[in-house]
Amino acid sequence: MSGLNRVWVVSGATAAGVLAFFLWSAARPASAHAADKMIDKAAVKFTEDGKLKKPTGYRMWPFIGTPITPNDMNDGEAAFPEFHIVYMDPDSFAHYEKTGEYRDGTVLVKELTSVGSKEATSGKGYFMGEYIGLEVSMKDSKRFKDEPGNWAYFSFGHKYPLKESAPKAATASCNECHQQNAKKDYVFTQYYPVLRDAAPKK
Amino acid sequence: MSGLNRVWVVSGATAAGVLAFFLWSAARPASAHAADKMIDKAAVKFTEDGKLKKPTGYRMWPFIGTPITPNDMNDGEAAFPEFHIVYMDPDSFAHYEKTGEYRDGTVLVKELTSVGSKEATSGKGYFMGEYIGLEVSMKDSKRFKDEPGNWAYFSFGHKYPLKESAPKAATASCNECHQQNAKKDYVFTQYYPVLRDAAPKK
Repeated sequence: MSGLNRVWVVSGATAAGVLAFFLWSAARPASAHAADKMIDKAAVKFTEDGKLKKPTGYRMWPFIGTPITPNDMNDGEAAFPEFHIVYMDPDSFAHYEKTGEYRDGTVLVKELTSVGSKEATSGKGYFMGEYIGLEVSMKDSKRFKDEPGNWAYFSFGHKYPLKESAPKAATASCNECHQQNAKKDYVFTQYYPVLRDAAPKK
Repeated sequence: MSGLNRVWVVSGATAAGVLAFFLWSAARPASAHAADKMIDKAAVKFTEDGKLKKPTGYRMWPFIGTPITPNDMNDGEAAFPEFHIVYMDPDSFAHYEKTGEYRDGTVLVKELTSVGSKEATSGKGYFMGEYIGLEVSMKDSKRFKDEPGNWAYFSFGHKYPLKESAPKAATASCNECHQQNAKKDYVFTQYYPVLRDAAPKK
């Protein structure tokens, strides 16, 4: 066997090994990739002292619904002014589509905008203005094991600039209302047509 | 050189070739992948006689804004009842993020929902009910070369069941209003905070 052939044999074996890795990687089911993504990249991050960091990238998450509580319908100051744009993290949305359940780790982001105008060529109504606030809810049975339903709530403020991190809100200030009034597992599913339609049909 | 070694040499060369393809494929820039996706999978499809097929999958597209024109603020019957959930196809959104422009091929989907209720624990307002309609606008300089701005408009109806395909609306019925009143290139960007914020800062 010549030296050249010997090199080919060795590089052939190496190439076959690397190729096998690529084939294995490409052939893995999509769910395995999603699981990797979960490990590599959590939907949200926490500070060392347990505060939630202001989330990023959520505007590309699945949108689930937009309630609006305008200031002018709430004595000039709504509790949550005014449009509430609500998103769910993609992996939890995929789980919801399969099961109709909010899995452990589900994150909902509620981004608030002002009312920018009340009349357009399409008619009278409410039209979005500027971003004014950001809130998050998260279900986590380890991190929030003492919260009812394991849901915790965070507010980054109702005016800009938003806070960079937020502590968990007191149970009485958010959780109790969600517990009593939300349609399903502390989420106001009744106002989110995307979720209602995405759940498996019974 | 033995027969076994000869096999290794041949399979090594084959493996190296296949590996080279995988490496090339993996190393290509994301934009090349996006371009492939465009060719393989258009955001929307047309019938042979030029009608737009009812789009699918758009609820996972980037959300850009939700105007609401409630029936009760429009003499009982809004022109577009009532919540307008608006999405943009992902590749065009990515282009918009880079350039602030609506590229050729941009598709916007406007999905309509009824008002489900007007009061919740979060306050008085408007809360989404059921899906009731679907409309689409698309900019295409080849397909709609005679339309102002190359934008065409399609309605799949304001009640369910929706139409399976829709012809381009007459220019006077949609395009003219968009042309006169929309903030930027026939799109009501002024009501879409996601778009305003996503555009490159000048």
